[in-house]
Amino acid sequence: MRPANDTLLRALLREPTEYIPVWLMRQAGRYLPEYNATRKRAGSFLGLAKSPAYATEVTLQPIDRYPLDAAILFSDILTVPDAMGLGLYFAEGEGPKFERPIRTEADVAKLAAPDPELSLGYVMDAVREIRRALANRIPLIGFSGSPFTLACYMIEGSGSDDFRLIKSMLYGRPELLHRILAVNARAVADYLNAQIRAGAQAVMVFDSWGGALADGAYQEFSLAYMRAVVADLKREHDGERVPVIVFTKGGGLWLEEIAAIGADAIGVDWTVNLGQARRRIDDRCALQGNLDPMALFAGERLLRAEAARVLDSFGNPRRADGRWGGHVFNLGHGISQHTPPESAAILVDEVHRHSRTLRG
Amino acid sequence: MRPANDTLLRALLREPTEYIPVWLMRQAGRYLPEYNATRKRAGSFLGLAKSPAYATEVTLQPIDRYPLDAAILFSDILTVPDAMGLGLYFAEGEGPKFERPIRTEADVAKLAAPDPELSLGYVMDAVREIRRALANRIPLIGFSGSPFTLACYMIEGSGSDDFRLIKSMLYGRPELLHRILAVNARAVADYLNAQIRAGAQAVMVFDSWGGALADGAYQEFSLAYMRAVVADLKREHDGERVPVIVFTKGGGLWLEEIAAIGADAIGVDWTVNLGQARRRIDDRCALQGNLDPMALFAGERLLRAEAARVLDSFGNPRRADGRWGGHVFNLGHGISQHTPPESAAILVDEVHRHSRTLRG
Repeated sequence: MRPANDTLLRALLREPTEYIPVWLMRQAGRYLPEYNATRKRAGSFLGLAKSPAYATEVTLQPIDRYPLDAAILFSDILTVPDAMGLGLYFAEGEGPKFERPIRTEADVAKLAAPDPELSLGYVMDAVREIRRALANRIPLIGFSGSPFTLACYMIEGSGSDDFRLIKSMLYGRPELLHRILAVNARAVADYLNAQIRAGAQAVMVFDSWGGALADGAYQEFSLAYMRAVVADLKREHDGERVPVIVFTKGGGLWLEEIAAIGADAIGVDWTVNLGQARRRIDDRCALQGNLDPMALFAGERLLRAEAARVLDSFGNPRRADGRWGGHVFNLGHGISQHTPPESAAILVDEVHRHSRTLRG
Repeated sequence: MRPANDTLLRALLREPTEYIPVWLMRQAGRYLPEYNATRKRAGSFLGLAKSPAYATEVTLQPIDRYPLDAAILFSDILTVPDAMGLGLYFAEGEGPKFERPIRTEADVAKLAAPDPELSLGYVMDAVREIRRALANRIPLIGFSGSPFTLACYMIEGSGSDDFRLIKSMLYGRPELLHRILAVNARAVADYLNAQIRAGAQAVMVFDSWGGALADGAYQEFSLAYMRAVVADLKREHDGERVPVIVFTKGGGLWLEEIAAIGADAIGVDWTVNLGQARRRIDDRCALQGNLDPMALFAGERLLRAEAARVLDSFGNPRRADGRWGGHVFNLGHGISQHTPPESAAILVDEVHRHSRTLRG
């Protein structure tokens, strides 16, 4: 059954809506004092992510504060390689790391897609618990890292400035990287399908690092494997369509190609002009984005103006030919931990207010 | 007088050439053992950059090793704000920093464009000394950071992941940022003109961080000020045209707009498809790029194949209508310090070899 507020799902599926729905990447996060309090109780980020009770608590926090049109599962993009046995950990004050990165052919040969019901059960438990807590007021979005983005961390062992290890493999031993990516694509599809079975009403694939690839390499090593994931997804559950969003940060140059892989919606960062993007793909997919998260550091008047500018750039989703495009308002990247919480309230208000004026 | 090998200048000006010229961003750098030896003698990076004798020595090192088609002045992109009194320094193992970043309206009010002959004389001395050492075999490229990129460091005080300080100003106090950028544009134009008078035969504006801006903000806060710089440049010296290259890393979405600011050539990073880029701007500017520097970590066979792919993507610079486009081969970003020096030799050889086969 569709949620009471199904505006997000309708926008993703390019059905008519009364206003533009909005959610914020990383909306359950460190800019919220209540999140920091829960995290303190949990002891660590992984303590939060691996506990269905805590994950539910923090997933609901921004929903209780703001009239957002979707909740997104609180989890980490690296749960899948962790379940593959690579040993995810967070060093204090640093990003995610793996204890056992993939460096040799023998490491690659050992890789296998994990059974998500067995080794990622804590995520499915969280999905079910969040759905109960939401009581179908708004939809819940599930997510995963993209096959390429997972491979970046799996091979580099951490974040990277230059992706030297994975790109050395890409340029020097492409067949090895393809083997890793094939396993990852299988694992990501299985993982997202398990989330859908557990109750995720839309899913998003985060390709955080595909934009670091060269033209040509992006299509071969990132986009092709997102296409494989999308092709294997369960697109309907309990009689409802489950929309799929793909988001390559820095992927604006490849929009036409991204629009052809079969996803319902494309996330875009703030470098993209939404009006041009819409024309380039002729509304074949919905677009999700794309305010610069740093606009939340402007005062109220200029923040409202920036939000309105993003909405105006997309324009009226209803086309002259009677078809509908789809716009889901979001940031172009995760909300900054330094964001004043009241700025998020202003933003959500302005998106709802201004987008109603675009209908007509 | 044009240099004995003027292939680079001809390609930048879209005149006929026999092959595609090549140089490498950061070609005088830490991947070369002779560079590290000189740097050790100089004591520090700034010790190198501020000594005309050392700067000449390291500028010539890659020229002595490889048959490159251009030399580029060894310097830092932040010499201009250093001359403004901000106090450039390098903390061990970190990027550049400023002792006195711009944080208040009073800081902004004090900013003024420095006289490059007075406060950046060491750069002009280096240009003159390098020209003497090159004996006009190949051209010397001068350069500066772009007004926006300089402002990033001036306001953040260092590199940044999220550009929170400068973007808070951009979104919250745009008029203040415009004042800084106007000073920077004046300073950059004066600086590049002084380099041209001292003997730089082409100049390049590095907009390393413009690609971090949102669509709209890029045009207003980075591109507009590069346009102002280009408009104020001396385009001819000693009877020869002085070509101008502008390079916004991550600026591929804005190529048409970049092509309209009056520069001769546009640098592009590896996310851009050169063939498409050429069609988008209809060869109104030359293009410089765009191999992923990480391709230099492939073995010889695959490195040669990648270099050929980049050349083929641009294709024959001679158009069907008889006009010429211009291609200057380069990396899409600076060469990595971990690059095997012999890979650079293979790359230069392949560019020269393969590009001759594209003529016909």
